[in-house]
Amino acid sequence: MQNQTRIIIENVLPQLDGGAFAIKRIVGQTVRVTAAVFSDGHDVIEACVKYKHESEKKWKEVRMTSTVNDEWFAEFKVEKQGNYSYFVEGWVDYALNWQHGTERKIHDNQYVKSELLEGAEYVKTILDEATQEEREYLKHLEFLFQNESEYENAISEATSNKLTTIFKKYPTRFLANQSQELKVYVDRKKALFSTWYEFFPRSASEEDGKHGTFKDCERLLPRVAQMGFDTLYFPPIHPIGEVNRKGKNNATHAEYGDVGSPWGIGSVHGGHKSTHPELGTIEDFKQLVKKAQDWGIEVAMDYALQAAPDHPYVKDFPQWFKWRPDGTVQYAENPPKKYQDIQPIYFESGDWKNLWKELLDVALFWIEECNIKVFRVDNPHTKPFYFWGWLIAKIKKKHPDVLFLAEAFTRPKIMNELAKQGFSQSYTYFTWRNSKAELTEYVTELTQSEQKEFYRPNFWPNTPDINPFALQSGNESTHLQKYFLAATLSSNIGIYGPVFEYMVCAPLAPGKEEYLNSEKYEVHKWDWNIQNKLTRLITKINGIRKEQASLQQTNNIIFCHTDNEQIMAYYKFDDDRQNKTLMVVSLDAHHTQQATVRLPIEEIGINPVHIVDLITGNSYLWDKEWNFVELSPDLPFHLFKIQQ
Amino acid sequence: MQNQTRIIIENVLPQLDGGAFAIKRIVGQTVRVTAAVFSDGHDVIEACVKYKHESEKKWKEVRMTSTVNDEWFAEFKVEKQGNYSYFVEGWVDYALNWQHGTERKIHDNQYVKSELLEGAEYVKTILDEATQEEREYLKHLEFLFQNESEYENAISEATSNKLTTIFKKYPTRFLANQSQELKVYVDRKKALFSTWYEFFPRSASEEDGKHGTFKDCERLLPRVAQMGFDTLYFPPIHPIGEVNRKGKNNATHAEYGDVGSPWGIGSVHGGHKSTHPELGTIEDFKQLVKKAQDWGIEVAMDYALQAAPDHPYVKDFPQWFKWRPDGTVQYAENPPKKYQDIQPIYFESGDWKNLWKELLDVALFWIEECNIKVFRVDNPHTKPFYFWGWLIAKIKKKHPDVLFLAEAFTRPKIMNELAKQGFSQSYTYFTWRNSKAELTEYVTELTQSEQKEFYRPNFWPNTPDINPFALQSGNESTHLQKYFLAATLSSNIGIYGPVFEYMVCAPLAPGKEEYLNSEKYEVHKWDWNIQNKLTRLITKINGIRKEQASLQQTNNIIFCHTDNEQIMAYYKFDDDRQNKTLMVVSLDAHHTQQATVRLPIEEIGINPVHIVDLITGNSYLWDKEWNFVELSPDLPFHLFKIQQ
Repeated sequence: MQNQTRIIIENVLPQLDGGAFAIKRIVGQTVRVTAAVFSDGHDVIEACVKYKHESEKKWKEVRMTSTVNDEWFAEFKVEKQGNYSYFVEGWVDYALNWQHGTERKIHDNQYVKSELLEGAEYVKTILDEATQEEREYLKHLEFLFQNESEYENAISEATSNKLTTIFKKYPTRFLANQSQELKVYVDRKKALFSTWYEFFPRSASEEDGKHGTFKDCERLLPRVAQMGFDTLYFPPIHPIGEVNRKGKNNATHAEYGDVGSPWGIGSVHGGHKSTHPELGTIEDFKQLVKKAQDWGIEVAMDYALQAAPDHPYVKDFPQWFKWRPDGTVQYAENPPKKYQDIQPIYFESGDWKNLWKELLDVALFWIEECNIKVFRVDNPHTKPFYFWGWLIAKIKKKHPDVLFLAEAFTRPKIMNELAKQGFSQSYTYFTWRNSKAELTEYVTELTQSEQKEFYRPNFWPNTPDINPFALQSGNESTHLQKYFLAATLSSNIGIYGPVFEYMVCAPLAPGKEEYLNSEKYEVHKWDWNIQNKLTRLITKINGIRKEQASLQQTNNIIFCHTDNEQIMAYYKFDDDRQNKTLMVVSLDAHHTQQATVRLPIEEIGINPVHIVDLITGNSYLWDKEWNFVELSPDLPFHLFKIQQ
Repeated sequence: MQNQTRIIIENVLPQLDGGAFAIKRIVGQTVRVTAAVFSDGHDVIEACVKYKHESEKKWKEVRMTSTVNDEWFAEFKVEKQGNYSYFVEGWVDYALNWQHGTERKIHDNQYVKSELLEGAEYVKTILDEATQEEREYLKHLEFLFQNESEYENAISEATSNKLTTIFKKYPTRFLANQSQELKVYVDRKKALFSTWYEFFPRSASEEDGKHGTFKDCERLLPRVAQMGFDTLYFPPIHPIGEVNRKGKNNATHAEYGDVGSPWGIGSVHGGHKSTHPELGTIEDFKQLVKKAQDWGIEVAMDYALQAAPDHPYVKDFPQWFKWRPDGTVQYAENPPKKYQDIQPIYFESGDWKNLWKELLDVALFWIEECNIKVFRVDNPHTKPFYFWGWLIAKIKKKHPDVLFLAEAFTRPKIMNELAKQGFSQSYTYFTWRNSKAELTEYVTELTQSEQKEFYRPNFWPNTPDINPFALQSGNESTHLQKYFLAATLSSNIGIYGPVFEYMVCAPLAPGKEEYLNSEKYEVHKWDWNIQNKLTRLITKINGIRKEQASLQQTNNIIFCHTDNEQIMAYYKFDDDRQNKTLMVVSLDAHHTQQATVRLPIEEIGINPVHIVDLITGNSYLWDKEWNFVELSPDLPFHLFKIQQ
């Protein structure tokens, strides 16, 4: 026979796929839990959320509040990294139900002697739990309720708030019901707020034609730090395969001296646990990581699970690759395209357990040897989802600080699944969203749909793989807009530089979104000392992001109406609603645009609003719902701080 | 370590609360299953729905079709009453993937000798399963693929549809993944299509002042049948309590001769397994049920779980009631209201197992003794939900024909939960939905939201408990509209008569939605022979419902635009899209209304439509998208059959 409970708990949110996956938070954030909780009949019911960190034994509890239509909510704060569990509990609260019914009868002038005797029973059951002071009060009530001569005092105390408070404090959860347990994974702050800079370390040299080294990279740390970046991401630093190496501009055959793609990993010099000899030794890399830390920068490594034909794995663990009937090894392909410089790892190998273990060891090597805590994962969508779920959980169990950025530019469900499996951050479609409608729709989806619970976007205007059409114009204003949009729409952002800030933008060919003479296949020499409007404004914007808490999160955003399709405006606020910013940006790189912008008065009220443009320092008093703005391509945005 | 499968299956629909509850169908209906199915990488994947009836051992299988964005669907038909299970299975189809890739390479003029050798391996693995004829073809292919001299023939056959068909027929489901199992409960047709008539058997006598009997009811069967009703529902027929009996118009004290409420069940004459002596014996009742069957009518009983103070249970099983500290038994109350003639059953009793068993026995008694197959359950929302889940499953296991109508007029989540727990049909808010906007919104919710999978509405314009304000006018046109709306919006409907068709409508008091001199508390004498416009049109409409399959289901409805807020129009079709009806109804009981109605051309095309009004026999040719109608209060509706 079934459970005798009378309580139904349904639709507990947030919840991913019936509890299969954890939602995500960072330390200090809040989880707002909602649920439908109801019972048969008309009795008073109560509900709470119980939650605890994995390191704790005892459940903490927060009482839920009912709103309308049998919906309840409660909030709790997550204070530690790692897994929390939470569930909803509901019960018919007989003591409160008794008080509620008795109160209504008293107001109806009914004689409630029998009810008072019932009340005495409820009072008795909690005597043991109560404090000394409460116990004295309860004993007094018991006396009143049982003595007819005290009837007037009794009915006054029976309905007292004091008694309500005590009943609420010591509920008798007879036949309570619980929802299933759900999970929230809590990361450190960087999971939600990070500013990435990517460059090719082999292009770090100051000398023409010379291969850059980790030492050269040390020289560039001040530049990266001063521009306000906190995460420095390098394409793979491992030995580059020499067999079937790609030439410049992705030529099938390398010429003498061609350096190959860093993603073609492995050679006689080693594999995923080695460094490319021309970059330096592991000791050099360790030192670079340490120096970067001194500058407040974390080095992010590329975790790219594939092998060049001469990767040591191919000889040592042939069972980890797929062999064809003709005795050759399977290279990567997406028919009819072939990628002969890369062999995919065969995850369906019978030896998969050893394979997984080795791949885990690779990550642990860099974490534990070199203090690496951030990985950008190359093409995770071409490896099994469950592998990622396993790997990330395994690493985070030991090293909760470690973060993973999923580099998957593919179909929406696949990108979502990777995030559910545990990736801390994910690349997005931002790179291809240009119009006001596109940007608004996409950011709304990311921040208002279920995705907000598990998908932490990282907005990149460009990457070594993507030279988007919008930037191929080389227009300075477009570059400024793109950076501003990324940096204020999303709290996680990154650029591939110095290509971005130096506006290098020639495409491989018309109609292609790849770079001409891409650093993927050759060494570039840059003058890293050049400053321009872009470097100065990037520095400014990054600085503002560090000061304004509302820009250090992504979900609290409200798009504001404007009467011009070329001008978009949005309002952001931090979780405590202490810091409030309002962004206004023109999408027109060629003409001055004017608009009136509607303040989100539902959120900020209709008092006059004092706003300061943190870019220019200019301040304004906006005392109307709709306010005039004008933006020129020279400086196509306002970043207002709202002061009230 | 985790499962090695590469397939993810998400969001399988229909699905209720993560599979906790069964969706509902009737015999012959279809279940359309949709799911997101995808894998990492770019391989060809396949998916199917597996399903079986609880009586079967072997799963049947239907292959899914992909649509867009990794969404797949398939349909299967349910042929038997009882429980079906279904789940989704997906796998990377290596053979198809090989064929797909090889085809693209061949089109790219690549030399695919190595691929053909791979193909030979795929061909070999299915030789054992294949038919003799297929095997010969496969052996031939194996030869071609392995002999370079046959290269041209080999590449032609490698991409043949014949091979595709064989690969599809014998998939190698290496590392397949399955969704969880979900359930569908299949009822007989009456669960979805029923026409109820309710009257008080004690009012069935022809003699003034005489208590009606089961024998009297037999006399009324032809009237009920001829009006087109197929379900005859009686308020409780059990002995009526004599202690604290209610008087006329719900007076607290009965006068001498007052008959009391039939819902105050139990007296010295017996309880829930007895009949009220003045109605007749169980044998009389059995005979009535049998005679009704001869008229094509099923008798529905009231299953009302409460006891009068003199119910035998109170003495025999005092533990099934709640006793107060002063030694009295708890009567029903909703403070400050008291219902001293009724004692609720105490479901939290320690003796709950015996209690549940006895309540099950009550239902089984009427099912097995008197061949009762339909129950209207009184106030199920004041008894535990899990009790209903248990009871209904228990009864349906033994008697799958038995249907339960939930009489719960309460909050939405509670009404939904009862339906999820297994009630076959449910009362609705239709009784209070009057305007076009209200009706459209409510029916859209019932038929387009998740409710369509488990909540079978039964539309009642009135009940003995509800004399809705809209009918208190006594206006004939309003009564016609309400019946027409109920009968064409919902396939399950009912009226409480003869109050409805004789338009008895005085309220207990102004502002009350109860009947004056309600039959709940007194015997009425009716002239059951009166025929009027309402009886004739109800008969007509009920007759049409029996002929038009589109009116025998509720979910296939499309509301049509009209340019008049007083005129609503809606189009219905059966599952096979063979039978199509179009309803146009005026909501104005006082004035003639005109409108143009938009045909749902997306559904029926823009050919001229030949429509016949099944009420009047008039036919029309509608050759435009928008068509003119005029409706007067005399006959405020069209019921068109669409012929094309």
